[in-house]
Amino acid sequence: MTEFARKVPLRAGLLTGAMARGRGEEGTRITVMDYNGDRFEETSATSIDECLAFKDSGGVTWINVEGLDDPGLIESFGERFGLHELHLEDIVDTSGRPKLEDYGDYILVILKMLYPWGEGAQIVSEHVSLVIGGNYLISFQEGRGDVFDAVRKLIRKNKGRVRGEGADYLAYLLVDAVVDGYFTVMEGLGEFVEETEEAVLDRPDRTAIGDIHELKTDMLYLRKAVMPLREVVGELVRGDSELVTDSTGVHFRDVYDHIIQIMDILDTYRDIVSNMLDTYLSSLSNRMNEIMKFLTMFSTIFIPLTFLSGVFGMNFTYLFGKDWYWSYPLFWLGAVLIALGMLLMFKKKQWL
Amino acid sequence: MTEFARKVPLRAGLLTGAMARGRGEEGTRITVMDYNGDRFEETSATSIDECLAFKDSGGVTWINVEGLDDPGLIESFGERFGLHELHLEDIVDTSGRPKLEDYGDYILVILKMLYPWGEGAQIVSEHVSLVIGGNYLISFQEGRGDVFDAVRKLIRKNKGRVRGEGADYLAYLLVDAVVDGYFTVMEGLGEFVEETEEAVLDRPDRTAIGDIHELKTDMLYLRKAVMPLREVVGELVRGDSELVTDSTGVHFRDVYDHIIQIMDILDTYRDIVSNMLDTYLSSLSNRMNEIMKFLTMFSTIFIPLTFLSGVFGMNFTYLFGKDWYWSYPLFWLGAVLIALGMLLMFKKKQWL
Amino acid sequence: MTEFARKVPLRAGLLTGAMARGRGEEGTRITVMDYNGDRFEETSATSIDECLAFKDSGGVTWINVEGLDDPGLIESFGERFGLHELHLEDIVDTSGRPKLEDYGDYILVILKMLYPWGEGAQIVSEHVSLVIGGNYLISFQEGRGDVFDAVRKLIRKNKGRVRGEGADYLAYLLVDAVVDGYFTVMEGLGEFVEETEEAVLDRPDRTAIGDIHELKTDMLYLRKAVMPLREVVGELVRGDSELVTDSTGVHFRDVYDHIIQIMDILDTYRDIVSNMLDTYLSSLSNRMNEIMKFLTMFSTIFIPLTFLSGVFGMNFTYLFGKDWYWSYPLFWLGAVLIALGMLLMFKKKQWL
Amino acid sequence: MTEFARKVPLRAGLLTGAMARGRGEEGTRITVMDYNGDRFEETSATSIDECLAFKDSGGVTWINVEGLDDPGLIESFGERFGLHELHLEDIVDTSGRPKLEDYGDYILVILKMLYPWGEGAQIVSEHVSLVIGGNYLISFQEGRGDVFDAVRKLIRKNKGRVRGEGADYLAYLLVDAVVDGYFTVMEGLGEFVEETEEAVLDRPDRTAIGDIHELKTDMLYLRKAVMPLREVVGELVRGDSELVTDSTGVHFRDVYDHIIQIMDILDTYRDIVSNMLDTYLSSLSNRMNEIMKFLTMFSTIFIPLTFLSGVFGMNFTYLFGKDWYWSYPLFWLGAVLIALGMLLMFKKKQWL
Amino acid sequence: MTEFARKVPLRAGLLTGAMARGRGEEGTRITVMDYNGDRFEETSATSIDECLAFKDSGGVTWINVEGLDDPGLIESFGERFGLHELHLEDIVDTSGRPKLEDYGDYILVILKMLYPWGEGAQIVSEHVSLVIGGNYLISFQEGRGDVFDAVRKLIRKNKGRVRGEGADYLAYLLVDAVVDGYFTVMEGLGEFVEETEEAVLDRPDRTAIGDIHELKTDMLYLRKAVMPLREVVGELVRGDSELVTDSTGVHFRDVYDHIIQIMDILDTYRDIVSNMLDTYLSSLSNRMNEIMKFLTMFSTIFIPLTFLSGVFGMNFTYLFGKDWYWSYPLFWLGAVLIALGMLLMFKKKQWL
Repeated sequence: MTEFARKVPLRAGLLTGAMARGRGEEGTRITVMDYNGDRFEETSATSIDECLAFKDSGGVTWINVEGLDDPGLIESFGERFGLHELHLEDIVDTSGRPKLEDYGDYILVILKMLYPWGEGAQIVSEHVSLVIGGNYLISFQEGRGDVFDAVRKLIRKNKGRVRGEGADYLAYLLVDAVVDGYFTVMEGLGEFVEETEEAVLDRPDRTAIGDIHELKTDMLYLRKAVMPLREVVGELVRGDSELVTDSTGVHFRDVYDHIIQIMDILDTYRDIVSNMLDTYLSSLSNRMNEIMKFLTMFSTIFIPLTFLSGVFGMNFTYLFGKDWYWSYPLFWLGAVLIALGMLLMFKKKQWL
Repeated sequence: MTEFARKVPLRAGLLTGAMARGRGEEGTRITVMDYNGDRFEETSATSIDECLAFKDSGGVTWINVEGLDDPGLIESFGERFGLHELHLEDIVDTSGRPKLEDYGDYILVILKMLYPWGEGAQIVSEHVSLVIGGNYLISFQEGRGDVFDAVRKLIRKNKGRVRGEGADYLAYLLVDAVVDGYFTVMEGLGEFVEETEEAVLDRPDRTAIGDIHELKTDMLYLRKAVMPLREVVGELVRGDSELVTDSTGVHFRDVYDHIIQIMDILDTYRDIVSNMLDTYLSSLSNRMNEIMKFLTMFSTIFIPLTFLSGVFGMNFTYLFGKDWYWSYPLFWLGAVLIALGMLLMFKKKQWL
Repeated sequence: MTEFARKVPLRAGLLTGAMARGRGEEGTRITVMDYNGDRFEETSATSIDECLAFKDSGGVTWINVEGLDDPGLIESFGERFGLHELHLEDIVDTSGRPKLEDYGDYILVILKMLYPWGEGAQIVSEHVSLVIGGNYLISFQEGRGDVFDAVRKLIRKNKGRVRGEGADYLAYLLVDAVVDGYFTVMEGLGEFVEETEEAVLDRPDRTAIGDIHELKTDMLYLRKAVMPLREVVGELVRGDSELVTDSTGVHFRDVYDHIIQIMDILDTYRDIVSNMLDTYLSSLSNRMNEIMKFLTMFSTIFIPLTFLSGVFGMNFTYLFGKDWYWSYPLFWLGAVLIALGMLLMFKKKQWL
Repeated sequence: MTEFARKVPLRAGLLTGAMARGRGEEGTRITVMDYNGDRFEETSATSIDECLAFKDSGGVTWINVEGLDDPGLIESFGERFGLHELHLEDIVDTSGRPKLEDYGDYILVILKMLYPWGEGAQIVSEHVSLVIGGNYLISFQEGRGDVFDAVRKLIRKNKGRVRGEGADYLAYLLVDAVVDGYFTVMEGLGEFVEETEEAVLDRPDRTAIGDIHELKTDMLYLRKAVMPLREVVGELVRGDSELVTDSTGVHFRDVYDHIIQIMDILDTYRDIVSNMLDTYLSSLSNRMNEIMKFLTMFSTIFIPLTFLSGVFGMNFTYLFGKDWYWSYPLFWLGAVLIALGMLLMFKKKQWL
Repeated sequence: MTEFARKVPLRAGLLTGAMARGRGEEGTRITVMDYNGDRFEETSATSIDECLAFKDSGGVTWINVEGLDDPGLIESFGERFGLHELHLEDIVDTSGRPKLEDYGDYILVILKMLYPWGEGAQIVSEHVSLVIGGNYLISFQEGRGDVFDAVRKLIRKNKGRVRGEGADYLAYLLVDAVVDGYFTVMEGLGEFVEETEEAVLDRPDRTAIGDIHELKTDMLYLRKAVMPLREVVGELVRGDSELVTDSTGVHFRDVYDHIIQIMDILDTYRDIVSNMLDTYLSSLSNRMNEIMKFLTMFSTIFIPLTFLSGVFGMNFTYLFGKDWYWSYPLFWLGAVLIALGMLLMFKKKQWL
């Protein structure tokens, strides 16, 4: 167990875990729900033994562990429920990728929950692990979240089919809740994409490039978080395990479609943003072109005129026309003609 | 059924549903067609029970539902025809991707109909679902469309093989009608591509980059709409389901070829447009180059001349040649020689 | 048969069909060749019944139809030879992609013949369909071509193995003739690529970018025409059909290798051209750099000198040194020193 | 054996072998560890015969060879342990890629150990080969390393399961130690990426582009080193060989996940760096734009003013207004008005 | 056999065949080696009958044909050894791609030998074909090469296992010799890559872009030559043919690894070169930026000063301060203050 909790933070500030938000400090909290079609019990456990009391209740036992700071607790779960030591590592290693491990007796599902955070396009991720057994489900959350509250309500109020189904259906509800959260993140992202697009097309300036850079980096991390999820849910759909019934498999297929849809949106956004960058750079070049054209035309008109005035400003004694009355008006006439000639030339060059 | 009608609008203005066009307001309309080789009946139903009357008529019953605003109606269809609750969600979720679900008793096919809309390259999409049963077919349209009118005529006038075939052949006709609509969209797009290409090659200016940006974004969305269709029709071609006969499979293969052709055209257009962008940027650089070259040559010729005139404009008492008669003509001679020398140098530098 | 002859022209001027060249006007022409090891007969038929006379001759019957303007004729072929209605559509739809349809009794092969056309890199394509039956082969050409003349000579003069083999070997000869035509197109393209490359490296100007744009667009269309061919011939190599013998399969494998080679060349050309574009843009930047450097150096040298001359041109009564004899020579000395100092600075900046 | 030790150095200075660091000079060192649950022996061997003494000890024998300079020694290992001559080549060819060869009696695993080296982002690689037999494991290191010390401690102190498991578990520990070293390299790289990103966004100057170039090249080599490792460990996970037990396979799967994670991080870094380059170039263009705008505005304001002053500096006798008292103040008034007009125009052009 | 020796030269000067080097003029040369463990005979044959004399010697017969100019000779080989006519075409078509044809009785292997040629990065390729039979091997070389001399020495001196093995082992030695030649080419290329990289980073000028262009084009052709080789040797490794024994298959696997390594290096080089191009373009932009900044600052300082001097150079009678003693020194003071103000502004804009 040499590598317990090795952690490679990917990007501080973007996909940092819940702990960075100060949630982890509150210690670990365990809640247990035990139910079947007729019966329903909900307690807040403080030790693992309280959880085991429900193990042979005949119904489904859902143990929810919030906070991963207590390695002793996780290890004792490992012992009591016969979890592989490497799987325990996966549960606490918050830098790990989403994955599914089918160990026969139980299935371990590692997920990433995503929340929009603060203003702008900032997003935080939270490490979530589900251990799906025959008649129990243990969920480990990195922080104290409320994303599973909707599921809790369904169980409490006996709505939908959850009370009549097994632990696999509960797993479906939890995974679906996590994936639903992604749509919220996508919507926020979509708005930011649209705002940036408008900004880029309207006034291509310095802040735009910063926004594009941020968008690209954000999407890059999002993609990394969502992509392995497809495989995970894909394995649940295929339903090789006896722990997942066929009818639940159909539901997982629905979740799978949602994930495909999210990746589709992400791909589309990515293409739009890269499209934006091209447009931005083209606009910059265009602007430069206009500026240069203006400078060139302006200079070109005045340079010969200035030279001419310089010529007549020379202190030669024998400067022809110096004492002629019409010299000055003629000079101006010449200047205007030169300027007009230049403008004509620019017209021909299609610079005007 | 927590996620009924979750909707992630992808791009307002481009692929918004029919509802945005004000069609959905008119309420839901149900039309029923029942036919076989000999018999043909067509009614406009107001309740689901009227539809069920035809269920055991021995012929094929086509129920067309326009408008998805009445969830109660959709759910009652679900109950009467034994549709899975998740499939009902797919029917009303107008942001869902095209897909095919084979549930044994029936096949659910989700499609996107595309229409050109207004001027320019604007395109709207409409969500269409087909439920293909043994002897019935239910089609759900997001708005009130006329795209299936050609099929209705075939049935009414007993043209082609439709009256002699089953519900799967009807499904083929409907899918084919949808895919045919894509060709119309492609043609409009093709014209816009050609116009933009000409504009870019002729006069690379600011409006061109806007058009290219719009084209790229449009094609991106089109591709997302067409791509999953290939899989859907591909599954119909493979004909794993007993609901699709082999002879109808051959017809679906024809539709499949059309979809491949559409994707081919889309790919080609996309490459052309990206090609255009490269050319546009190169043209810009080229123009900048010419402008700079012109400015540089023009300045370079006049700068030393202006300096020279400045020198002879100095108020030194002992300015050599000041009082000489030939100074002024000689100055002009020098100026012309300097200018000629410069031009020669530019010639050598291949700037002229 | 609602979609008979639907046509989406991809790029007028590049891959337009033969009809655009005025060939189609001449009406449809049918030629029939019937042969085996001993016997050989060649006639020009005017009706389909004349063709059928040879059907049970015991030898191989090759019916060549030039011109697709007569839908009645095509349909009568369909009836007499039992061709599927969808396949008839494929034969006349000149915008369709190359493909192979194995219908058991016959194999339908759709190909694109390519010709160089006029000057430059212009290429036209022609729609060719082969119906390979047990002892007959029907070939449909969009226009009146001479590409199959070499094959006709082989049959007339009884050269090679053609007279001793079946319809599948004839099909091989025809497909090989079509693919051979591609090499001619490739050679022309290759020359144009090389010319453009030289032009770009020598003098990167405006016409070069136009040529690169044309090359890229041409290759794009060529690729689209050749790519599906690989699949088609690949299916013939695999020889799932009983209509293609193993020994002919070996010959088709040879054609397959040629197609791979053509795609290889196309890929290489495409990479070269995109390489060219990079080089072109870099050269442009380089040139701009040089121009800017020149302008900057030139201006920088003269700007302070002009200022100095302006200073001594001021009309102040108390302009120090104004009446000193050495002022003027000293001014020139200063000017030369300033210019030399500037040049030294540019040397240090590595601008010279 | 003609190609013994053929070596294609990829990039001197980046991925040079340990020998370049002068380690190889110290000669070859052999250490032997023999252990099972009860027994543990550790000696430093000088000849191969000492190693063979442990061969039938009943426990696991780990022979660690540091230094590949003595071809005779390697060959004698080949003879005694029945290694294929080509595998001996692989062991000494330090330019070879990571790979796995299953020869039935033994498995050869070729790995690359990576160390950060010196300051900056410099990394060195070391060639490591593992020969996994039934009850022995021979490890060949290019240089004298300390990366396996942690494993040695585990064995000596009988910690974890290593003493109770076979040679395959030892192999897992060694591969895991190597892969753990990659994380250290990744962390160093990540810091360098972040520093560079900040530098690019803050002040896009010359050194930034050098850093980006270095980063890109480094990552390129790292990817090449890590990528084949995935296949190698993937084969160990699949466990086709009888030499790897299923329970060790589960552990290798853990290592596999770590490698996937490393590749993920590498991909992310690569995308970030390429993202950075885009942003850098955009920033440059932006800056150029600003500079040009400034120059253009500044010149444009003064050019007409200078011309005007030149006009009134002409030495014409009849220069209107020359002797008027208000000429000079009026000139200044005109200059200020012209300047204000220019500024207004720039405002309208949105250059200000 | 209309396509004997069809030839599409890919790039004159780079991958032209040996004939371009004047080797083909010397006519065709045939050498025969016949050997087994005990016996060894080597003769220089002039006709094909001399070669056939060894056919049933019981040992392995290696017939080496240098020069492909004599189609009659190649055809007579075809007749005597029962080679397929299409395979004869492949042997003489020097523009063909590397490939493997397993014809049951013999295996045809087509390879490309690569040599560095002249100075710079020029490379020539030579077409090599191996016909591997049960107890004979015929090798056809486009030109007279010495690349197989090392193999001849092994046979003559009975070194290694070659005399004890069959024709397949000989084939391995020949293929290995060809692939070894690629490493030499790679090393030369690597040096050129490094030189160019240094040049680009040190002084990004015009010649650099030419070198990059050449490198990119060369690598493109190299890749095309090496890539199909992987498939060829891959098929030999899989050993579907009875002509290749398992033990030789292991040796081919070694060659396969070398090819993978070569492709790896090529990929790396390609990425480095494309990396280089990015860096080059960035450097150019950077330089342009600096030049522009310099010009702008320089102009900006002097433009107002020149204007001021122009103002005091006006010939107004009432020019205020004209006759004041301190005007001139004050002018200079003003000039210095303006210049300092400008410099301060540039400092603030971070242009200095």
